[in-house]
Amino acid sequence: MSQSATTAALKIIPLGGLHEIGKNTCVFEFQDEIILLDAGLAFPTDGMHGVTIVLPDMTYLRQNRHKIKGMIVTHGHEDHIGGIAFHLKQFDIPVIYGPRLAMALLQGKLEEAGVADRTELRTVQPREMVRLGKNFLVEYIRNTHSIADSFSVAIHTPIGVIIHTGDFKFDFTPVDGECFDLQRLAEHGEKGVLCLISDSTNSEVPGHTPSERSVFPNLDRAFSQAEGRIIFTTFASSVHRLSMALELAQKHGRVVSVLGRSMLNVIAHARQLGYIRCPDDLFVPLHMMHKYPDHQVMYLTTGSQGEPLSALTRISKGEHNKIKIRPGDTVILSAHPIPGNTIAVVNMIDRLMMQGAKVIYGREQGIHVSGHACQEDQKLMLALTKPKFFLPVHGEHRMLVKHAQTAQSMGIPPENMVIIDNGDVVELTRDSIRVIDKVPAGIELLDRGGIVKAHVLQERQQLAEEGIITVAVAVGTDGSLKATPEVHLRGVVTAIEPQAWQAWVHATVETALSDRWSEYTRNGEVDWAGVKAHIERELVRLVRRELQGNASVLLLLQPIEVTPTVTTGIRRRRSTTSVVG
Amino acid sequence: MSQSATTAALKIIPLGGLHEIGKNTCVFEFQDEIILLDAGLAFPTDGMHGVTIVLPDMTYLRQNRHKIKGMIVTHGHEDHIGGIAFHLKQFDIPVIYGPRLAMALLQGKLEEAGVADRTELRTVQPREMVRLGKNFLVEYIRNTHSIADSFSVAIHTPIGVIIHTGDFKFDFTPVDGECFDLQRLAEHGEKGVLCLISDSTNSEVPGHTPSERSVFPNLDRAFSQAEGRIIFTTFASSVHRLSMALELAQKHGRVVSVLGRSMLNVIAHARQLGYIRCPDDLFVPLHMMHKYPDHQVMYLTTGSQGEPLSALTRISKGEHNKIKIRPGDTVILSAHPIPGNTIAVVNMIDRLMMQGAKVIYGREQGIHVSGHACQEDQKLMLALTKPKFFLPVHGEHRMLVKHAQTAQSMGIPPENMVIIDNGDVVELTRDSIRVIDKVPAGIELLDRGGIVKAHVLQERQQLAEEGIITVAVAVGTDGSLKATPEVHLRGVVTAIEPQAWQAWVHATVETALSDRWSEYTRNGEVDWAGVKAHIERELVRLVRRELQGNASVLLLLQPIEVTPTVTTGIRRRRSTTSVVG
Repeated sequence: MSQSATTAALKIIPLGGLHEIGKNTCVFEFQDEIILLDAGLAFPTDGMHGVTIVLPDMTYLRQNRHKIKGMIVTHGHEDHIGGIAFHLKQFDIPVIYGPRLAMALLQGKLEEAGVADRTELRTVQPREMVRLGKNFLVEYIRNTHSIADSFSVAIHTPIGVIIHTGDFKFDFTPVDGECFDLQRLAEHGEKGVLCLISDSTNSEVPGHTPSERSVFPNLDRAFSQAEGRIIFTTFASSVHRLSMALELAQKHGRVVSVLGRSMLNVIAHARQLGYIRCPDDLFVPLHMMHKYPDHQVMYLTTGSQGEPLSALTRISKGEHNKIKIRPGDTVILSAHPIPGNTIAVVNMIDRLMMQGAKVIYGREQGIHVSGHACQEDQKLMLALTKPKFFLPVHGEHRMLVKHAQTAQSMGIPPENMVIIDNGDVVELTRDSIRVIDKVPAGIELLDRGGIVKAHVLQERQQLAEEGIITVAVAVGTDGSLKATPEVHLRGVVTAIEPQAWQAWVHATVETALSDRWSEYTRNGEVDWAGVKAHIERELVRLVRRELQGNASVLLLLQPIEVTPTVTTGIRRRRSTTSVVG
Repeated sequence: MSQSATTAALKIIPLGGLHEIGKNTCVFEFQDEIILLDAGLAFPTDGMHGVTIVLPDMTYLRQNRHKIKGMIVTHGHEDHIGGIAFHLKQFDIPVIYGPRLAMALLQGKLEEAGVADRTELRTVQPREMVRLGKNFLVEYIRNTHSIADSFSVAIHTPIGVIIHTGDFKFDFTPVDGECFDLQRLAEHGEKGVLCLISDSTNSEVPGHTPSERSVFPNLDRAFSQAEGRIIFTTFASSVHRLSMALELAQKHGRVVSVLGRSMLNVIAHARQLGYIRCPDDLFVPLHMMHKYPDHQVMYLTTGSQGEPLSALTRISKGEHNKIKIRPGDTVILSAHPIPGNTIAVVNMIDRLMMQGAKVIYGREQGIHVSGHACQEDQKLMLALTKPKFFLPVHGEHRMLVKHAQTAQSMGIPPENMVIIDNGDVVELTRDSIRVIDKVPAGIELLDRGGIVKAHVLQERQQLAEEGIITVAVAVGTDGSLKATPEVHLRGVVTAIEPQAWQAWVHATVETALSDRWSEYTRNGEVDWAGVKAHIERELVRLVRRELQGNASVLLLLQPIEVTPTVTTGIRRRRSTTSVVG
């Protein structure tokens, strides 16, 4: 290396995942080399009308694409791999390393998006070391999380070792027996960790996160008590939970039909890779389920968050064409609502109950646990790795603050940590950590049609709040009205009949034209922009007067060429100018 | 009475407040007499674009207005009195009884709406009995709740005593010293209660609701630790909480400025009626606050739910013209987010923290308690009143179910209770309770402009999701295009330039006209509806082809009269028919 040890600096630039839960995307840059850690997506929040996917702004990586040596994937959740297919349309990534399950899920996404040829996917094993460029050597350290095959990583850089926890909890009794590799963490702690970058999701929650296995006896009890059919839902990616549900179905003599594309996909890959083990004949196609008595049936379905189009939501609304709730059905909701989904979930529960289902839900049932470390677990991570510097990530601002307070309580001085936002450029040296710059890190919103720009979202918001009144007016080059103005109200609150609006608009336009026409003509030339602005002003005035609320007004003006003819009209005719394209 | 004792029946018809938290409105009907208990409003939920207020459908009361003898108000919360001013525009209510604070707040609402003359407001005292019509004698029983001056009621009817709890908790150490009148409840229990109608809000929560007073030491600690200014927020109607905040301001030597219309209103009335006691000079106008050092200042503000227009939300966004957050400020959030508001609240907390404020929030701080009874309190209510029949109200469906399960665990047989929905007509006799009918009980949505009908909401939803493409076309009676079609895109996601849209639409319309014009004319008459439908179809086809997503298409067609002239055109001219109004 050309730089001396003391001045050598690593840049850490999160493009997503800070001040939010979602779209985790982190850049590590050393001299002319960049590696990426994960590239996820987020889901739209309130007011993002029509938006289906939220991605980080990738300007920085587009501009520095020549530096990209590869990507490290920690696990297969959407908020860690869901953005990759979109980014590959903008720039190549020479190689992507990741665990088998994540790579299997990613492969499908890349093929579907037609970008599988823009990168190379390579699977890794626990404790495997992979080299990216000259400056990065990345070691995969098995961790425990709510999806199978998840990893933390130790990134060996010229200035020292950085531990990035990925998403984690400490589950000492994991369902699949794959234990957190505490020994590697401890060894790094012993040798010296320059910086710990750690998951802050549950930093506001005291105590320890219970083991995934702790839900098993509670689910078992629910299965025991179910008399009719069981409808079981959880996050599609919760491989361990799905594994337990399938084990319980076998134990209680129930066949299983799986509903929902993402769940079918995860189960297929997890079975293929051995993370879920169960016989083929456990599964029965949906259209064959009626052959089994109710107490031998389980449906495994998406929709644990009350997603509008999910199978469970449609079932709860009586809109599913195959499954109608009947008394005796037990619905097991093995997931808590994510904030923002609460209303959708409780409404779904109510609808299911009203149709006669017994619904098992809520914290007291003990049928769901988090996949993320709570405060005491976060302390264990800090205690094992003993980092010099600390960077809390994967969380909203107050969670990062809380995580930093936890780290401070364990002796890390405040000057050895930074609380950052997406786009902040963190400069890490052997002796210091600080924010030195900011790169673009806004959001890109996608709907089915493409990128939703900010002004489009504003227009949608305004349309949603007040609706729109559209008026078409055909005006002759002589200032005469050539047709009855056409008026259309959409999304507008008014007690006034359409005919009345029609008449008022007609009168308003006529008056506007006859009062001021002469002002907008000069030497036979018509100032159509002026005419339009004038009529528009008068229409807005009309709407303000007649509506208690408000509505956007859109005027479409059609200038009509009028050939001068001999008439007895009072108005003086002007020579015609062509106004039509 | 003409009916025999055994056949006499009381109808109980909730028009709001069931399968929801909000717009509590209950009808009691005996023969030709109706009394109402409360008439509240609800706030809009997701997808109710532009809606500000949700009210119950009042068809049943409009139709039976001649039977209405009066209304009983239990307390002054918006979800119990907020609908009254709107209903009085539809029908008179001869008299409204209620506690002093509720009547003071209601008086203001009625005056503002200009309907104060449509009823008579009468304040009641604890244990006061009021007669309504021949059949109803209502006894006001002091209870404890999060607003001061709250009541349960015993409704004496010809078939027996009905206890309606109103909203309640059992607070044995109320802030204002006004204790729950357990003695009256117990006496009714001893004499015999035919039916208990009880608050189900917290029926999913085990245990007891803590006393309002329990938050005092925790707030006191927060005040002690605050070094700079304090910004305190809670529900505007939480009189006891406000009272404590003001007491603590005095104790810690801080002057107070109150922000937010509803909070100013509640504090003014509560002080006037003696529910809040503090000296006048505690309050300082906003523009004078800069004269005091930071540690002698407290702002008391609305916005505890992250409401977009509230002072605190604007402060958090740096958009308040008087108050900018500075390091050292302490924001005390003495309220939990209501489900549905969580995202707005946590985002607000994050923004406040990012600007340097210390924010005190969250359950572990012990600075908020609920105003509603939990499971053990609900049991105490059942134990004191020993009702024969039980009707759980004030809750979403699953809360009603849970409350009924609690009642069943105390020995009330399932056939002695019903779980109902808004509009259900419950027939209560001395021997039975059952649902016998259903009356209209939908919702009415209001925005600033008036009633938002269902189709308007659907239009708004569609506009919000995909935007709208508007096209104006002027077509001559000879089938010629009389002007360049005008195209306008609003809220539409497209990477295509406006000029390209313009050209495509122009070409599409021209082709549509030249291809099919002859089909739409007969004997010189133009089938304009047919022409319009045809062009519209072609435009929709264009949009489907060119947009990945979708967009509504609106075509405004202007038929232009063309006077036949001698031309060299190929097209055969027809005689002109007038198409303009």
